[in-house]
Amino acid sequence: MTYKRTDLALEETEMHRENTGEQGDIDGIKISEKNDNGIKITRVEVLDENASKMISKPIGNYITLEADTLDYISKDEYESMCKALKSELSYIIDMDLSKPVLVVGLGNRNISADALGPKVVEQMLVTRHLFEHMPQISDSFASSVCALAPGVLGITGIETMEIVKGVTERVKPGLVIAVDALAARKIQRINTTIQISDTGINPGSGVGNNRKALCRDTLGVDVVAIGVPTVVDAVTMTNDTFDMTLDAIKNSGECTQGILSVIDKLSDEEKYALIGQVLMPTVGDMVLTVKEIDMAMNKISKIIAGGVNTFLQREMTFDQIESFTL
Amino acid sequence: MTYKRTDLALEETEMHRENTGEQGDIDGIKISEKNDNGIKITRVEVLDENASKMISKPIGNYITLEADTLDYISKDEYESMCKALKSELSYIIDMDLSKPVLVVGLGNRNISADALGPKVVEQMLVTRHLFEHMPQISDSFASSVCALAPGVLGITGIETMEIVKGVTERVKPGLVIAVDALAARKIQRINTTIQISDTGINPGSGVGNNRKALCRDTLGVDVVAIGVPTVVDAVTMTNDTFDMTLDAIKNSGECTQGILSVIDKLSDEEKYALIGQVLMPTVGDMVLTVKEIDMAMNKISKIIAGGVNTFLQREMTFDQIESFTL
Amino acid sequence: MTYKRTDLALEETEMHRENTGEQGDIDGIKISEKNDNGIKITRVEVLDENASKMISKPIGNYITLEADTLDYISKDEYESMCKALKSELSYIIDMDLSKPVLVVGLGNRNISADALGPKVVEQMLVTRHLFEHMPQISDSFASSVCALAPGVLGITGIETMEIVKGVTERVKPGLVIAVDALAARKIQRINTTIQISDTGINPGSGVGNNRKALCRDTLGVDVVAIGVPTVVDAVTMTNDTFDMTLDAIKNSGECTQGILSVIDKLSDEEKYALIGQVLMPTVGDMVLTVKEIDMAMNKISKIIAGGVNTFLQREMTFDQIESFTL
Amino acid sequence: MTYKRTDLALEETEMHRENTGEQGDIDGIKISEKNDNGIKITRVEVLDENASKMISKPIGNYITLEADTLDYISKDEYESMCKALKSELSYIIDMDLSKPVLVVGLGNRNISADALGPKVVEQMLVTRHLFEHMPQISDSFASSVCALAPGVLGITGIETMEIVKGVTERVKPGLVIAVDALAARKIQRINTTIQISDTGINPGSGVGNNRKALCRDTLGVDVVAIGVPTVVDAVTMTNDTFDMTLDAIKNSGECTQGILSVIDKLSDEEKYALIGQVLMPTVGDMVLTVKEIDMAMNKISKIIAGGVNTFLQREMTFDQIESFTL
Repeated sequence: MTYKRTDLALEETEMHRENTGEQGDIDGIKISEKNDNGIKITRVEVLDENASKMISKPIGNYITLEADTLDYISKDEYESMCKALKSELSYIIDMDLSKPVLVVGLGNRNISADALGPKVVEQMLVTRHLFEHMPQISDSFASSVCALAPGVLGITGIETMEIVKGVTERVKPGLVIAVDALAARKIQRINTTIQISDTGINPGSGVGNNRKALCRDTLGVDVVAIGVPTVVDAVTMTNDTFDMTLDAIKNSGECTQGILSVIDKLSDEEKYALIGQVLMPTVGDMVLTVKEIDMAMNKISKIIAGGVNTFLQREMTFDQIESFTL
Repeated sequence: MTYKRTDLALEETEMHRENTGEQGDIDGIKISEKNDNGIKITRVEVLDENASKMISKPIGNYITLEADTLDYISKDEYESMCKALKSELSYIIDMDLSKPVLVVGLGNRNISADALGPKVVEQMLVTRHLFEHMPQISDSFASSVCALAPGVLGITGIETMEIVKGVTERVKPGLVIAVDALAARKIQRINTTIQISDTGINPGSGVGNNRKALCRDTLGVDVVAIGVPTVVDAVTMTNDTFDMTLDAIKNSGECTQGILSVIDKLSDEEKYALIGQVLMPTVGDMVLTVKEIDMAMNKISKIIAGGVNTFLQREMTFDQIESFTL
Repeated sequence: MTYKRTDLALEETEMHRENTGEQGDIDGIKISEKNDNGIKITRVEVLDENASKMISKPIGNYITLEADTLDYISKDEYESMCKALKSELSYIIDMDLSKPVLVVGLGNRNISADALGPKVVEQMLVTRHLFEHMPQISDSFASSVCALAPGVLGITGIETMEIVKGVTERVKPGLVIAVDALAARKIQRINTTIQISDTGINPGSGVGNNRKALCRDTLGVDVVAIGVPTVVDAVTMTNDTFDMTLDAIKNSGECTQGILSVIDKLSDEEKYALIGQVLMPTVGDMVLTVKEIDMAMNKISKIIAGGVNTFLQREMTFDQIESFTL
Repeated sequence: MTYKRTDLALEETEMHRENTGEQGDIDGIKISEKNDNGIKITRVEVLDENASKMISKPIGNYITLEADTLDYISKDEYESMCKALKSELSYIIDMDLSKPVLVVGLGNRNISADALGPKVVEQMLVTRHLFEHMPQISDSFASSVCALAPGVLGITGIETMEIVKGVTERVKPGLVIAVDALAARKIQRINTTIQISDTGINPGSGVGNNRKALCRDTLGVDVVAIGVPTVVDAVTMTNDTFDMTLDAIKNSGECTQGILSVIDKLSDEEKYALIGQVLMPTVGDMVLTVKEIDMAMNKISKIIAGGVNTFLQREMTFDQIESFTL
């Protein structure tokens, strides 16, 4: 099932249901939904190895926050989203306040659709150096926080995991929060969905280049990942639209047996491969984003930084934190 | 035929042929092709009103330069493309050296896929102020050149045409060269094609918001437009892939009469509308670009500035011009 | 007295007092001071031609808002400064709500110390196009606002005044608000002072290149200028420090008659010229700014945009306006 | 003598001579000068501990390349400077081609005057990942190169040295090349001088905040530093101008005994302290740069990247390297 690229556990469960035709519970996966101030929050818990294989995601928790848009929002919606993010981080993270938190902003700051991580890092309220050098000031802060935007392999020549591991070995954080841009299957997910997970992250996995994962196994410390889909790959997106269009033709009642027999002969994999072939060689590996991505990243990085900052400095008000990151 | 959004005359002629099934000459349209150092150059001349209506483009010349990529290029390819651009500009433009040339960079500099125009303006070799204030220096320059990036309606609150007209009335240029990002029908055109035309330009026309045109009628001076497709709209792109995929199914010989009868019942317009409906309401007006657009715009703006600068300062060598814009 | 470069009327009055030795009122100049939430507000009114010559400033009003810093501020200080700016704009401007306001952001966006104007323009709540095309929306806004960042002569080849005049002739605003970076005499003014005046502005005047002024005479409409000192020229700054140091030596009581007689022999102009000569040829025209200018411009442009937006849209709350410019 | 802030060994030797009044050789310091295509190259070798203390610089080599400007240069001058830099790097570095080279870009990319390092990193021809994953491609490259812009303490909360040490422990480079913006004593050094040294570098040392050094002692690998002065501190600059102005007064012959006796009573330290006091509290720690710093950093980072790239990939021509970094 990995042929359709998505980094979202929620889309993986959707695809599993489409493929199996089952609409109810999935064995080994616990799903709960709630609505908080217009934000749809879905908690997906992958409980066992079997379920993990089924949806191609490690055992663990995946929380999705969905809004109509994360881009064109009012100040109230901005604050609501920050608070929902803080609240879900509190749910998924069991903080050890005695050790620093390392926020890692993955991605390439020079590519708008990949700049989410570095942009969040620039808005983090960083305090670790105050704890080390200015204890009188650090009293105001609940957490010792440091942050790093390690860059991408093509620019550094070094695997992201190597850089982060080198730094964690020296900083010895109690928690790594990794922020990255993700790939979704559906283009309408772009700039509308935030995923939090406690299973770590595989830099670049969503867009075709698997690098070594950032996770407890590799770093020796818990890794919570926060991501927002910013891209879809052309073949996945087209395939989905193709299916939806054929469904619409079927449902319109105009469909004869003929078309069904053709489509039914093709397995999902075959159809996906066919579309890939049609789009080759020119579209091939193309990864698409939306025209407004630059502006959206400014907004969304602010939401994520706001959520993470208020989570980490829990004794400060929203306004106090804004003063530091004005 | 205007339902499929494209700013390229070349794609309009392709669509005309697809729609009519005619593969030969089109009445009222003269097309010639040549290959220059790996660059495919197509000159499309729309000769009369009838042809103009057929392909939804004003009477005039449209030249397309196509390369495998304008993004990942060597220094030699960069220079070849600059020279081809200079050469086609010389073909289409009859320069009056006694008046200044105004280069207008359309688009929003804060949106990567729309920033081509402003980026070109920043690399122009601007000389008009030297002609006015420092005649001893201006002797080295063949043309008096000025440049303007007027911004976009959403940021200025003023129609681009109003700003440009206000400035042309004062500067009184002999020629306006307008540079803009375009919309294509096919995603593989993004960052591979340059279109030059002598019919002016309609800012934003390719992406759904028609503004008043920059052309001889509105500005009272010849307007040559240079554009590069940077976006496709989601519905147009999906529709094209859908067609190609169905063709592939047909050609595979697996196709029964049934499917053909269904597809044949749908006119092009109906199918396009159906896909639009399928993608609504979430994808709707989405305008897509490629993930690498930021880097590509840096490269391509350099090519266009290089081509225009060498065209305008025809007595200077390529290296001399590079010295000014290093 | 124009040899010491400053754009601030307040510094001109200070210099006049230093030069004349008079500490009381200046004939033809009305000065009043107040303190508003830690912000020192000085209103200087130049009443007649004689006073105008004395301090090298056109007849009119000059208001200075001074804080310890405009850079490292809390959210409360940010809002206080916005409100003070709004209040002083209300004092100096007699609004005609029936015509649009044109906000002009002068300066070069690629030079941090000169980017104040363009940065403010990007944060303006622009509404004129809504008034023209979407009257149902424009009802929420008190003023029709448009904005323009015309660029600088070296990049456009066109005098700023020409561009602005071309646009005002088409837009026919009732008021132009021009925002620009200024030159101060004292480096401690950088990023601490905002000047508002109703006498227009001379782009680049503070840094040695006089361009045609933006004012009622040239544009045919009232021009209110808002500026913040971001640079000092090296000679002016050094001269001032030299004076202060000599004063300190004198006041230390260590001074013999000898040194006084030498210094006294030199007129102010001679000493200034001497320092200029000492710094020549290498330092010469150098214009200095502070290392933190980039960050400071982000903050200060936000303050000015906040003040102007709340002034222009007087029926909206601060938070409503922030929603638009988040 | 460390009270006057400079990172340049050349300025330290100048100050030593001024302070001692000796104009000839300095014991324990070997100085040689040459002129290469208009570029003045000075090699300063600090030979023993005694000399090291005298000029406050570790034992080792310091090479200075000086041009009239590194900012407004022609393409020929750009290439000459790259070649001179390559040549001096070859002189100072004894390359072990079997291990990767790590280029570290120190500084804050969001502060123009501090962004030299990060800007150079972005223009490095990075090859280490090719050596690891694509040996067929890496054959074209003489050196395995990786690069890192670790950020600054205020943004990361982690000492630069800690990050670099963490990464070097994993990458195990044979050489670290560290690029940083420097502080000079004289403002005319800004954007005109490049210093290369083989003694490592102390991030931030020139501007008042001493961090742990990057050098063989801390990293266990040779560190070559490349720096360009981009700032001066206000007190140092003023003090120098004060001295020069007093000298000019003296030399003008107008000087009486009186002034000499006052000035002579003040030691250098006292005078420096006096000026610092005069400038306090407002100017205090102010660090100054020039207005054009943004543009200059673009040019100068290109020169340094060009010099380092041609040095590291010695089998490639200048044009081949430019193709990669176009």
